[in-house]
Amino acid sequence: VAFSSGNHAQGVAAAAKILNMQATIVMPADAPLSKRDRTKSYGAEVVLYDRDKEDREAIANGIASKRGATLVRPYDDPFVIAGQGTAGREIAEDMTARGLIPDIVVAPASGGGLIAGVATAVKSRFPNAELIVAEPKGYDDHALSLKVGHREPHPAAARTICDALMAAMPGELTFSINSKLLARGVSASDEEVAAAVAFAYRELKLVVEPGGAVGLAALLAGRIDAKGKNVVIVLSGGNVDADLFAKLVA
Amino acid sequence: VAFSSGNHAQGVAAAAKILNMQATIVMPADAPLSKRDRTKSYGAEVVLYDRDKEDREAIANGIASKRGATLVRPYDDPFVIAGQGTAGREIAEDMTARGLIPDIVVAPASGGGLIAGVATAVKSRFPNAELIVAEPKGYDDHALSLKVGHREPHPAAARTICDALMAAMPGELTFSINSKLLARGVSASDEEVAAAVAFAYRELKLVVEPGGAVGLAALLAGRIDAKGKNVVIVLSGGNVDADLFAKLVA
Repeated sequence: VAFSSGNHAQGVAAAAKILNMQATIVMPADAPLSKRDRTKSYGAEVVLYDRDKEDREAIANGIASKRGATLVRPYDDPFVIAGQGTAGREIAEDMTARGLIPDIVVAPASGGGLIAGVATAVKSRFPNAELIVAEPKGYDDHALSLKVGHREPHPAAARTICDALMAAMPGELTFSINSKLLARGVSASDEEVAAAVAFAYRELKLVVEPGGAVGLAALLAGRIDAKGKNVVIVLSGGNVDADLFAKLVA
Repeated sequence: VAFSSGNHAQGVAAAAKILNMQATIVMPADAPLSKRDRTKSYGAEVVLYDRDKEDREAIANGIASKRGATLVRPYDDPFVIAGQGTAGREIAEDMTARGLIPDIVVAPASGGGLIAGVATAVKSRFPNAELIVAEPKGYDDHALSLKVGHREPHPAAARTICDALMAAMPGELTFSINSKLLARGVSASDEEVAAAVAFAYRELKLVVEPGGAVGLAALLAGRIDAKGKNVVIVLSGGNVDADLFAKLVA
């Protein structure tokens, strides 16, 4: 059993399929259709909940205890963080192969698992690299928490097109890592994220979902001082419904 | 001076910019707007012609002789073929690094320069690889020419969404290479190409233009016997206007 806005969902569903196990994924009812369809396509059962009124963790725990299933958390799990950290290991290996030293590494965060793993891997090879967490405007609980030194929820009740990055506050385990390794946070508005998705389409020929493009959005908006520096931006997630993608790249 | 439906155009324009030289590109008036804009963005002058009524080679030759410029042909040029062959070299290196032997390598063709370069590079490392040329339905002059053993134009006056692959017949230099190295041709309809563009968007998270997806289209349509084989498909070109892309992936 997992709860996820859609990308962790697909990972758990795909892993369960490979291992010939059953998977049940608790997803918000307003998750992109493409994420729901792809999760089901791996044979997983999808249980929908209301993002505003229901507690996905309680629903997932209920299913897990009733069925004797194991809960695979989207971020507060050392194995999931280690898996996501392979992206950081690839960054370190690719930069080393090119004879480059990364000055700045940017990755998006919802619960903070991806950037915790990336930061652990990158910092172990490049201790002077500056790790920056990217979040949607109004959902900048990591930036806020890094500033005050403890976990703080973001204040907003706003919506964002970054459906993957809507966790209310940093994870416990992830923040114990991130508070030590991250320098600061940057954020980007929906308009800036849309421009970054269009940039990736036009210039990089990559399909990047809004949440995956938030670091690139902050860079393009001039919020990261990149001049003369080696900057690595993690573009994570490409599951965006065709009608929204068409609007963003138009 | 170059003539090109849009991708060679960008290459020549970008090279001229790097070398601080002037470039003039003769492009069909119905070329995708994105190709025209990107060519201009490199500082090149774009001269439009009517694909049905005018001879692009004559126009380019006229400009070249008037201005004392050098004509850089899109395919019948040994240096251009060698440059495009670096894609084949990358295939050979990547397969070697993975300990794999490619059984089949597929690449699209208009004048045949890309596949001539790819075939030369791949065959030099893997002489038993089967090289297959992919073309749009009705524009299968390579398939036809390979069958009869000499250069034949395609019969159609049809249109295709593969704007990059509309050359009337194989190049002279390219066919002298391709007739020795290619096994056969496959083709795909507009509907099959659209499905391949959507597949690349959905599954590979790549933006591929119609002409670049024709090999993948033939594979997905079951026209290449891939079972148990290592198949390499070249996806070349990602310059597709946003409105057409939206229609194709919808």
